[in-house]
Amino acid sequence: MSDDVRISLREVHALVTEILVANGFSAAHVSAIADTVTAAERDECRHHGLFRVPFYVNGVRTGQASPDAEPVVTQLAPAVVRVDAKYGFSPLAVERGLGPVAELARKQGIAALAINNALNVAALWPEVEWLASRGLVALAFVAAAPYVAPAGGITPLFGTNPMAFAWPRGDNPPLAFDQASSACARGEMQLRLRDGRLLPENAAIDSEGNPTRDPAAALTGAQLPFGGAKGSNIALMIELVTGPLLGDLLSYEAGERDTAHTGAPCGGELIIALDPLKLSATGDLASQIAHGERLFAKILEQDGTRLPSDRRYSARQRTVTDGVTVARPLFKTLEALRGGATPQIHDYEGDHALR
Amino acid sequence: MSDDVRISLREVHALVTEILVANGFSAAHVSAIADTVTAAERDECRHHGLFRVPFYVNGVRTGQASPDAEPVVTQLAPAVVRVDAKYGFSPLAVERGLGPVAELARKQGIAALAINNALNVAALWPEVEWLASRGLVALAFVAAAPYVAPAGGITPLFGTNPMAFAWPRGDNPPLAFDQASSACARGEMQLRLRDGRLLPENAAIDSEGNPTRDPAAALTGAQLPFGGAKGSNIALMIELVTGPLLGDLLSYEAGERDTAHTGAPCGGELIIALDPLKLSATGDLASQIAHGERLFAKILEQDGTRLPSDRRYSARQRTVTDGVTVARPLFKTLEALRGGATPQIHDYEGDHALR
Repeated sequence: MSDDVRISLREVHALVTEILVANGFSAAHVSAIADTVTAAERDECRHHGLFRVPFYVNGVRTGQASPDAEPVVTQLAPAVVRVDAKYGFSPLAVERGLGPVAELARKQGIAALAINNALNVAALWPEVEWLASRGLVALAFVAAAPYVAPAGGITPLFGTNPMAFAWPRGDNPPLAFDQASSACARGEMQLRLRDGRLLPENAAIDSEGNPTRDPAAALTGAQLPFGGAKGSNIALMIELVTGPLLGDLLSYEAGERDTAHTGAPCGGELIIALDPLKLSATGDLASQIAHGERLFAKILEQDGTRLPSDRRYSARQRTVTDGVTVARPLFKTLEALRGGATPQIHDYEGDHALR
Repeated sequence: MSDDVRISLREVHALVTEILVANGFSAAHVSAIADTVTAAERDECRHHGLFRVPFYVNGVRTGQASPDAEPVVTQLAPAVVRVDAKYGFSPLAVERGLGPVAELARKQGIAALAINNALNVAALWPEVEWLASRGLVALAFVAAAPYVAPAGGITPLFGTNPMAFAWPRGDNPPLAFDQASSACARGEMQLRLRDGRLLPENAAIDSEGNPTRDPAAALTGAQLPFGGAKGSNIALMIELVTGPLLGDLLSYEAGERDTAHTGAPCGGELIIALDPLKLSATGDLASQIAHGERLFAKILEQDGTRLPSDRRYSARQRTVTDGVTVARPLFKTLEALRGGATPQIHDYEGDHALR
């Protein structure tokens, strides 16, 4: 049953590094991607961990992504910095933009980071967590590929479009969430298809628009937004602020661009950073943090509640000493990629929506 | 059956003006509140229209709100403007802050408006619509009073905490939404109690934490966030960015402050404005708007869909010529208030969550 491989986080990082080097990624991209994949494994956020490595390789092999594009950082306005990823994967673009947007937020009070032309298969929580661990408040938005029908409709149009938020907690890791605007993750649907399990209710419709819990019917139909019309509105907002606002692609356009079906959508990402010291007339970060903690205490005094990101942080404490487990088939795939094998594209179709 | 009174929008504005003048509101507050109430009636957003007028009067009569506080506008940082409402109602504070935040957004690319110490019973869509009608993209957040249990819990802690968003559409009115993070409006629960109707599923729990569709049980229990844990996360985010971030009250603190149970919670409001011209390397508003329109066309080509705010705008076309209907009991109450009568507080308890 448990044919898992256990490896340390150091080994995760080394494995990803070797795979990316073997596949022609530049040193800067290798470092940024290995860091983000290792962080996801560390937090047991597995859909963004080693599971994603074939997507990165595949994006390059099919010519959809650049393995060595050098992001170009420019300042578009006093409170806006842009990173043109030049069709490389997002982690390096994010890495290059976070320092500048943090600096602008401290100076101007609020600032935006506009990332263009990035291939997105990574989570959003690392960037908002990075900003909040430096005393800022952060929001992030990214679109994806067309899987989700707008409320009332039956044809996929919106991406699974996640929104992330983080709040500083002083010496403790920030409070953070990173949530799709679809009711169910794409990968969860595929796992249930494989395992012969039904979907949750209200997560999908078939191609005729009828509610379905059959994963096969759902995969040829459409996913539904979370929370009905309200979730659909959030998905729509994310399309607008990562597409037309930034001069970048909408999810359906990213889907059209991904002719090789790599499952690595290309587009924009918007990050907003706010400095609490500049948002309050009596700005005092320690007091503002303490105020948030009073709310968190009120939440946690209720049985059955938890704070977003608590699961990730408790995993983090565990994996730093115990390492992580990797399913044997995935481990074999990764070893083959390290040796230069071609990733099996059909294994991963659609899984990029796993958020 | 139809014992409604039909009056023109001009008469709505005059009626509100007379009531507020009779109750000691300053000219600036009268104008701002009459404008926002009339806009809500014009768009058939009735819960924020004449229905709210007793809340405004009541807030002043009980000493919770100031009828004549002059908002103080200060710039906290190059991209942040603050309006201290000095415990007056929000419409005047919003009116005073929108011009400055629009100007800062145009200059800096992104800007924030932090409103403090405002009593909030108005909708959020007027402010984001105002900004988007001037070519900006806008977000707004406000907390409320404690009615909503955090996901997994059973005790009210979060407000109904709405988030609003607007996107410019050139010569057409902006796309805008303004949605609570609770599954059901507070007033909807009270209307169903009055009418002996069950609540929708998943909207509330009783005081023991059991799911309930009984409005009476729900009113002594707690409302639930929309969309489960994801909606709860959004409610939590709104608490943080309108409370500790702005140095203002959390919903449960606003509830504690409202000792007279006016149903007019006091606290902060955060508005973020972005200038599309400064967020894109090839900033060209007409192209960016046209890009959004292509998405809207893709939504509307699907049967059963609509764009957020379309209902309001079609109501607007109707009411400008036809006027609006007002239920006879409400109209009588308003006429009494104009004559100086004391509003019946118990009639309105809790209804401020009607968003």
